[in-house]
Amino acid sequence: MHKVALIGAGRIGRIHARNIARHPRLALAAVVDPVEEAAHALATEWQSRVATLDGVLADPDVAGVVIASSTDTHLDYSVRAAAAGKAVFCEKPIDQDLARARTAADALSGARLLLAFNRRFDPNFQALKARLDGGEVGSLESLQITSNDPGPPPPAYVAVSGGLFKDMAIHDFDMARWLLGEEPVAVFAVGSCLVDPEIGRLGDVDTARTLLRTASGRLCVISNSRRSGFGYDQRIEAYASAGMLRADNVTETTVQAWTEAGAAADRFQNFFLDRYAEAYRREMDHFADMLDGSCSASVGYADGVAALALAEAAAQSLRSGQVVAP
Amino acid sequence: MHKVALIGAGRIGRIHARNIARHPRLALAAVVDPVEEAAHALATEWQSRVATLDGVLADPDVAGVVIASSTDTHLDYSVRAAAAGKAVFCEKPIDQDLARARTAADALSGARLLLAFNRRFDPNFQALKARLDGGEVGSLESLQITSNDPGPPPPAYVAVSGGLFKDMAIHDFDMARWLLGEEPVAVFAVGSCLVDPEIGRLGDVDTARTLLRTASGRLCVISNSRRSGFGYDQRIEAYASAGMLRADNVTETTVQAWTEAGAAADRFQNFFLDRYAEAYRREMDHFADMLDGSCSASVGYADGVAALALAEAAAQSLRSGQVVAP
Amino acid sequence: MHKVALIGAGRIGRIHARNIARHPRLALAAVVDPVEEAAHALATEWQSRVATLDGVLADPDVAGVVIASSTDTHLDYSVRAAAAGKAVFCEKPIDQDLARARTAADALSGARLLLAFNRRFDPNFQALKARLDGGEVGSLESLQITSNDPGPPPPAYVAVSGGLFKDMAIHDFDMARWLLGEEPVAVFAVGSCLVDPEIGRLGDVDTARTLLRTASGRLCVISNSRRSGFGYDQRIEAYASAGMLRADNVTETTVQAWTEAGAAADRFQNFFLDRYAEAYRREMDHFADMLDGSCSASVGYADGVAALALAEAAAQSLRSGQVVAP
Amino acid sequence: MHKVALIGAGRIGRIHARNIARHPRLALAAVVDPVEEAAHALATEWQSRVATLDGVLADPDVAGVVIASSTDTHLDYSVRAAAAGKAVFCEKPIDQDLARARTAADALSGARLLLAFNRRFDPNFQALKARLDGGEVGSLESLQITSNDPGPPPPAYVAVSGGLFKDMAIHDFDMARWLLGEEPVAVFAVGSCLVDPEIGRLGDVDTARTLLRTASGRLCVISNSRRSGFGYDQRIEAYASAGMLRADNVTETTVQAWTEAGAAADRFQNFFLDRYAEAYRREMDHFADMLDGSCSASVGYADGVAALALAEAAAQSLRSGQVVAP
Repeated sequence: MHKVALIGAGRIGRIHARNIARHPRLALAAVVDPVEEAAHALATEWQSRVATLDGVLADPDVAGVVIASSTDTHLDYSVRAAAAGKAVFCEKPIDQDLARARTAADALSGARLLLAFNRRFDPNFQALKARLDGGEVGSLESLQITSNDPGPPPPAYVAVSGGLFKDMAIHDFDMARWLLGEEPVAVFAVGSCLVDPEIGRLGDVDTARTLLRTASGRLCVISNSRRSGFGYDQRIEAYASAGMLRADNVTETTVQAWTEAGAAADRFQNFFLDRYAEAYRREMDHFADMLDGSCSASVGYADGVAALALAEAAAQSLRSGQVVAP
Repeated sequence: MHKVALIGAGRIGRIHARNIARHPRLALAAVVDPVEEAAHALATEWQSRVATLDGVLADPDVAGVVIASSTDTHLDYSVRAAAAGKAVFCEKPIDQDLARARTAADALSGARLLLAFNRRFDPNFQALKARLDGGEVGSLESLQITSNDPGPPPPAYVAVSGGLFKDMAIHDFDMARWLLGEEPVAVFAVGSCLVDPEIGRLGDVDTARTLLRTASGRLCVISNSRRSGFGYDQRIEAYASAGMLRADNVTETTVQAWTEAGAAADRFQNFFLDRYAEAYRREMDHFADMLDGSCSASVGYADGVAALALAEAAAQSLRSGQVVAP
Repeated sequence: MHKVALIGAGRIGRIHARNIARHPRLALAAVVDPVEEAAHALATEWQSRVATLDGVLADPDVAGVVIASSTDTHLDYSVRAAAAGKAVFCEKPIDQDLARARTAADALSGARLLLAFNRRFDPNFQALKARLDGGEVGSLESLQITSNDPGPPPPAYVAVSGGLFKDMAIHDFDMARWLLGEEPVAVFAVGSCLVDPEIGRLGDVDTARTLLRTASGRLCVISNSRRSGFGYDQRIEAYASAGMLRADNVTETTVQAWTEAGAAADRFQNFFLDRYAEAYRREMDHFADMLDGSCSASVGYADGVAALALAEAAAQSLRSGQVVAP
Repeated sequence: MHKVALIGAGRIGRIHARNIARHPRLALAAVVDPVEEAAHALATEWQSRVATLDGVLADPDVAGVVIASSTDTHLDYSVRAAAAGKAVFCEKPIDQDLARARTAADALSGARLLLAFNRRFDPNFQALKARLDGGEVGSLESLQITSNDPGPPPPAYVAVSGGLFKDMAIHDFDMARWLLGEEPVAVFAVGSCLVDPEIGRLGDVDTARTLLRTASGRLCVISNSRRSGFGYDQRIEAYASAGMLRADNVTETTVQAWTEAGAAADRFQNFFLDRYAEAYRREMDHFADMLDGSCSASVGYADGVAALALAEAAAQSLRSGQVVAP
């Protein structure tokens, strides 16, 4: 059993706590959070204990650290944990600022750091990638990534989020890189504020389309909205020379109702906690494999920086109306 | 151009009139109906003329006769038209009475008679049969035929219809024979009156399940209801040794609505006039081929009798609670 | 934590062991199996211990017993465990012999006994039932239960299985009772040996259709095959006065391939261990609720007997060609 | 019966000839084509006659002219036919050159001219638009138009086609305008040559993505490829404030095959002649309505110019890498 400390007892931290505690090869050694009440409640729920970050990093029994604290701490905590010799599981994004993120290159490029882009661990997207890589439909030519939230976050969240590209589309930039098999060399983005005027007043957009182009000419469209009107919408279409692979949304059940109006499928899974529940388990399983020493991180610091670079390029393109090289 | 006379200017007659008149190799020579007004209106619509049955049968220019008059005339008119040397297109059923239908064996067994089981000409069912016969999923083992109407007919219709098995399921018995590739040797039926109590008072059922078994053991279930609750429901599943082929319902368009409730397909095509519009065209095209002399009827008198025998067996099983050999 | 002993370390026992061990309110107190090696391996895997049935029943710390041993022991062990004051989780069927099963009525009718018809706990079927009971599509009129295995069991298994109706369709009889909301009063079955001639030589069938009818006239068709040709096939259609609810098969992922041949969905989940993994977890969760005292068994001894009665009626109908009252 | 002359006896001319000849209110008065053999064959097939353009325009009995000749003649013939007082049905595009097309504004702005953007008459897209306009899913925010051909045209065709945007995407620009309900004010396009290097040598692309933005901020992505790898691919997704409407591809039949590989739908309809057969009939029906005087053209010269302006803007954006105002 590898002892793992959790930094951050918020919404995503609670997901990781459960997956650590229930994992056959991991134990939740400690919970760290500046809000003592939250740390205490979560530690109690999983028969763990409350600790400080310093305490955890100094504890030779702690093999790994899961960083699920606020975004502005991701980079610093990762560097400190890596320096302390811990394996690091860090939530996305690596940082909101590309220049700052790049300053950690020496510290983190060689670190045992899993950057938790959870969608890479979704069974549907994993199957799509495996079949694409297996050549089932020939050579990839273009991607359509559709990623819409069920509803917009509160303005207070938007104000500190870093904007739609760094906060929401960052996942899609990572998926694009993962699936394209080549780095995008040109980024163009267009956006509007159609959902919530308050988002516009904060200088952000809530509806966007981003075009990516790789050196060999592969194209990718990323479609984002802060509110789909029909729930959480997470789909990928990969167009290749001999066909297309697509991963569709997940319904809550397979039950359909047939009425005079036609055949209606069940609603889509509500939001990321449901849709990506298995992805969260699988990424923690991958972290356990890293702690076993049986593999290195399949997605790490460099991927976090590269996705952030695309997000900054998209934001810049949106402002300038120009194509931007990331 | 083959001159064709139409007997019967009712709902189904009007369908056939249009398909004859628009057919590149057929001409609508005359319309016959005891209701002169109906005959006249239909003849006028398609630039044809009104005639009598005797006149039509005596007219050497008339090559074919389409019998779409009331069921009790089907057998007599077919015999007379065949005796007059005409090619015959006769609506289903051949008759409501099996014993009487069989009396026409000498007259009709060798006749050029197309018994118009329209579903054999539906593109979906034809494709299913072609793929099944092509061995794509191995050897057929069992069938599920689902055939539900959108709503019950008026009691006055039910009273003279011959009952659910002869009136409605007769199509399904024909489909079963067509697809099973073997004659059913055992029939068992169960039924209820769940839709309209008036149907029960008339001694009929409105909901039924019929089991067929062939000599080699192939099984078939026919599911019927006079009212589906969701429109016209016409589906077939063919289970075979290496998979299953199914023909599903047809939606009006491919448009889906995605809302908070999930993904909803468009409504199903309303009723037989819509769902089988192409089948009606194709069966008339087959009749034109018969008139060309390029083929004989793919479904004829013997098929009409065999389907009727199954319907009578089912009705008898329903009454007796016993398995019946048709 | 409720201490639970597991009787039977075979395939299904291993599923239950995992679900007990990982359950937040249950602990795997002991594993009992005449094959010591199997008991030992399973106990070791979940940090439990090996015990005897007598030892378990005498242990006041053991609150519940999960009976996953061979079918011929179900009834006896249930009676003994109930007599010892334990809550009982017993695998289906309650017994292969209806008369014998009924002898336990005094002992088990009032017992805290969960008869583990797992499909009642499947999320898809539960949702279908909840929506049906909620009146979304009006009043139920008929059911289509499709239940096909991916491939036939070995002849040695068939020989002691009790036959297709008691071994395989027993699940479907329970589903029919659960969903029909009324007891079937008439049973008719037809069957064939189309998959494996060896099954026929053993006096069994491998392909069957069973018709059920309730007192109010509701109809149910159960379709069974020991080999579907396309994997595990578990579907339900519930026809009601204002529409139809259907639960479809579950695919492994949502990935589709679009090629010149059309759009192809992913394969169906392989067999019951995959398809009903969540159902097994939910039924164990229900057992935990029973141990908490927060509910009584939602499906128990009487349901086991009733399903068995339908299975015997179906087998008798198959032999006699007559309708049988269960 | 309105007498209609057909100019052009090529592939699309033959479609229109059939739809005119079979239309209850139209008659095919004459066929005009510089290739006499083609004109003669088509006239013979539909019992019409061969004529010259001058003859047709001078004939007072000819009420309407269908222009299906080569693209470079569309504008000139339209002007001449309008001047002769004929109702005009003109194939798309109105011209390959925007400036030249605009020179006909005086002659054609007020003309009875139907510009035959066939997709506006497709039943699926018409239903989508009607439901969108009906407010079923709230207010439109963005569009995804997917339009891929099954395979690339021969290089000789590409060389004179005007390029992907004017030749192929012109349909999609029209659909975008039709559905967006607002004129695009910004166009950005990116493209690659991934399908056939010969297309690249001719200075064209075979894979493109075009972004449109309207004044109110509505967004539209148009996805084009000269070869999809899975057949003709014509889909629309319309994202609105309360949900999404989508029109999917059309399969040849409803037959599915269920095998060990999963459930496979039938192939998609092959290419535009099949997929848009009903659209071609409906647009001719609309032309008949115009000839009746019961309506004016629902899509005309101004729409042809506007779509062409978007195509030129896209081509310019592709070359410059800049956003272009059409």
